[in-house]
Amino acid sequence: MATPEERAAREHFASWARANKYTLSQDRVGNLFARRDGKRKDAAPILAGSHLDTVKTGGAYDGAYGVVGAMCALELLDARNITTEHPIEATAWAGEEGSRFPLGCLGSAVFAGLTPADAALALADEAGTTLRDALASEAGGLLRDVPQRANNTIAGYVELHVEQGPILERAGVRLGIVTAIASQRRFRVTLDGGSGHAGTVPMAIRSDSLGGAAEIILAIESTARALDEAVVTVGRMTVEPGSTNVIPSRVTFSVDMRSPNDAHVDAIEQTLRDAIARAKTIRGVRASIEALEGRTATPMTPHMREAVRRAANSIGARSMDVPSGAGHDTMCIAAIAPVAMIFVPSIGGVSHVGVEKTSDTDLELGVETLAAALVEVDRDLGA
Amino acid sequence: MATPEERAAREHFASWARANKYTLSQDRVGNLFARRDGKRKDAAPILAGSHLDTVKTGGAYDGAYGVVGAMCALELLDARNITTEHPIEATAWAGEEGSRFPLGCLGSAVFAGLTPADAALALADEAGTTLRDALASEAGGLLRDVPQRANNTIAGYVELHVEQGPILERAGVRLGIVTAIASQRRFRVTLDGGSGHAGTVPMAIRSDSLGGAAEIILAIESTARALDEAVVTVGRMTVEPGSTNVIPSRVTFSVDMRSPNDAHVDAIEQTLRDAIARAKTIRGVRASIEALEGRTATPMTPHMREAVRRAANSIGARSMDVPSGAGHDTMCIAAIAPVAMIFVPSIGGVSHVGVEKTSDTDLELGVETLAAALVEVDRDLGA
Repeated sequence: MATPEERAAREHFASWARANKYTLSQDRVGNLFARRDGKRKDAAPILAGSHLDTVKTGGAYDGAYGVVGAMCALELLDARNITTEHPIEATAWAGEEGSRFPLGCLGSAVFAGLTPADAALALADEAGTTLRDALASEAGGLLRDVPQRANNTIAGYVELHVEQGPILERAGVRLGIVTAIASQRRFRVTLDGGSGHAGTVPMAIRSDSLGGAAEIILAIESTARALDEAVVTVGRMTVEPGSTNVIPSRVTFSVDMRSPNDAHVDAIEQTLRDAIARAKTIRGVRASIEALEGRTATPMTPHMREAVRRAANSIGARSMDVPSGAGHDTMCIAAIAPVAMIFVPSIGGVSHVGVEKTSDTDLELGVETLAAALVEVDRDLGA
Repeated sequence: MATPEERAAREHFASWARANKYTLSQDRVGNLFARRDGKRKDAAPILAGSHLDTVKTGGAYDGAYGVVGAMCALELLDARNITTEHPIEATAWAGEEGSRFPLGCLGSAVFAGLTPADAALALADEAGTTLRDALASEAGGLLRDVPQRANNTIAGYVELHVEQGPILERAGVRLGIVTAIASQRRFRVTLDGGSGHAGTVPMAIRSDSLGGAAEIILAIESTARALDEAVVTVGRMTVEPGSTNVIPSRVTFSVDMRSPNDAHVDAIEQTLRDAIARAKTIRGVRASIEALEGRTATPMTPHMREAVRRAANSIGARSMDVPSGAGHDTMCIAAIAPVAMIFVPSIGGVSHVGVEKTSDTDLELGVETLAAALVEVDRDLGA
């Protein structure tokens, strides 16, 4: 975020808004809004959007699709001469991925008051540049001629996003209505066993940390498999000293567990702790477990989910309920407003890679659904 | 090998031999011999020795003890006015560890005719220096004033060595008579599964290569545990792409299996191949297995083991039979002569580390046993 590329994207957003006569605003951390007025000009707006930044090796869809989709939805409302009671705003959140400054969902967290703006602005990237300085610079900075946003009271938020997983594609359904954003807990586990010569230490007296890690990995995998919609991943592992002919002394690995159901994550964590305790007792390894960042599940607001479902039905699109394993800005906005998310399929279920893709017809279906959903949400809110 | 440090050690060996009036010889790859004549000057000699080189981070005992032990044994025979029928030679093999030039047991393999001298001399170290050039240089080269060895016909070989494992120490026995040097097979296994977002790919459709690796590791460990004296080690493992929030796509790991019984290594290899086949079927991973260097077991010569046992009894030392999980120069010399090995305990069972150590009294006991064993072997050979 706050790079020349993101700045160019925000310039593009602003030009588009001006061309369509929407009212621009931005805030101190670079969140950007384009308002299409409703009948009630002073009513709290309904926001639709996502983020413009990506992971370093990411593709074109994660985030940007939800911003462009919101822009298209506003144009659809114009083209169809639909007037809403509430203002509708296309929103571009700043810095969701945490790729440059070390805070995920930075823009939406500040907007929702979960992170003070000054704390976010004080964050530094790896080169030591603070977000404050990056946003003050010409290259990646705030837009010069866009007024500061007045207040953050909103009536609802709908985020359109690519699924980033294979559920929709496998089910042959083109539209997902998110049930909840999964809770996530991350741990770093370190097992210290006895090193030694691979040829001379009998099996019976070994304290092999990698064997212990293997048992732990299979135990948590087995628990997650038995729980609906829960997942657990060991994505990172180092084995030391890492010689073919030396029994590993230290194995370090990450554990990432997620579920839309917090109790399921509790169960996987318990299995992890039990398996570590067994490795200590049975294999004689020393073990430490360090809890890293985590989050509880964020259920989508029931009446907002229903609004999206009615929208899908209104355009004749088949939809299905899906959990979101990945995190989104919606997690933060849920702290201050009713929220919903709409997913379209990711081809091959892949994301965070350059080749991530969604078919054009699915992209269009997502936009149609979003536009219809914004109308439904506006109707729900009443006049 | 062929370093200034090893050269200095060989100079020391030569000075010692001259001071004790032993006859020096060396060969083209730097093996060095000091002969104490027997009554029959032209009889094939009995060799005792080991190697002077170490692994890069190794300690003082692995190898050098067997050379110094042989030197001390010859002095003991002198001190006790013992005359043997056959000549006895203290031997310093060159380059056993393969730390610089990529061939283990280089010196003894050339001596035994298993590797042609020219092939060994053509090997290059990581800097591109050939063994031929290193041995021709002043710094690490052959000794100038030592004659070329005439022939490699020998009557027997006894190698004194630190155990490098914990069996003797745990048994409270100070002397090991080696039964066999274990066979060893090494493999590199690669599992390719499906990568993906740690949060969005359901467990049921994952093809997780690390889970597959965990099952394989536990399967081979279980088989080895059930087989007397067999060991299996996964010492090296890499997990790619290695991100906390990405399901591993590729896992690569080493497998090292050893046993004094070749059939046991067959059984572990079969378990490995079966477990890989299961991972392919059940987890849908692709798998490749690459067999790296291996060796069959080298049993010690029965009458030589008995000679060592009589020697231990003659000095009142309690001994036990032990396998050698590590490889030794004895493996090569066994191709041309009867062989035996004597082990003394390694404190804590550790070796190939700077702190490897054997108590002075155990070192002395080993030397006494070696000296007595050489007399027993000489007696066995007859006049």
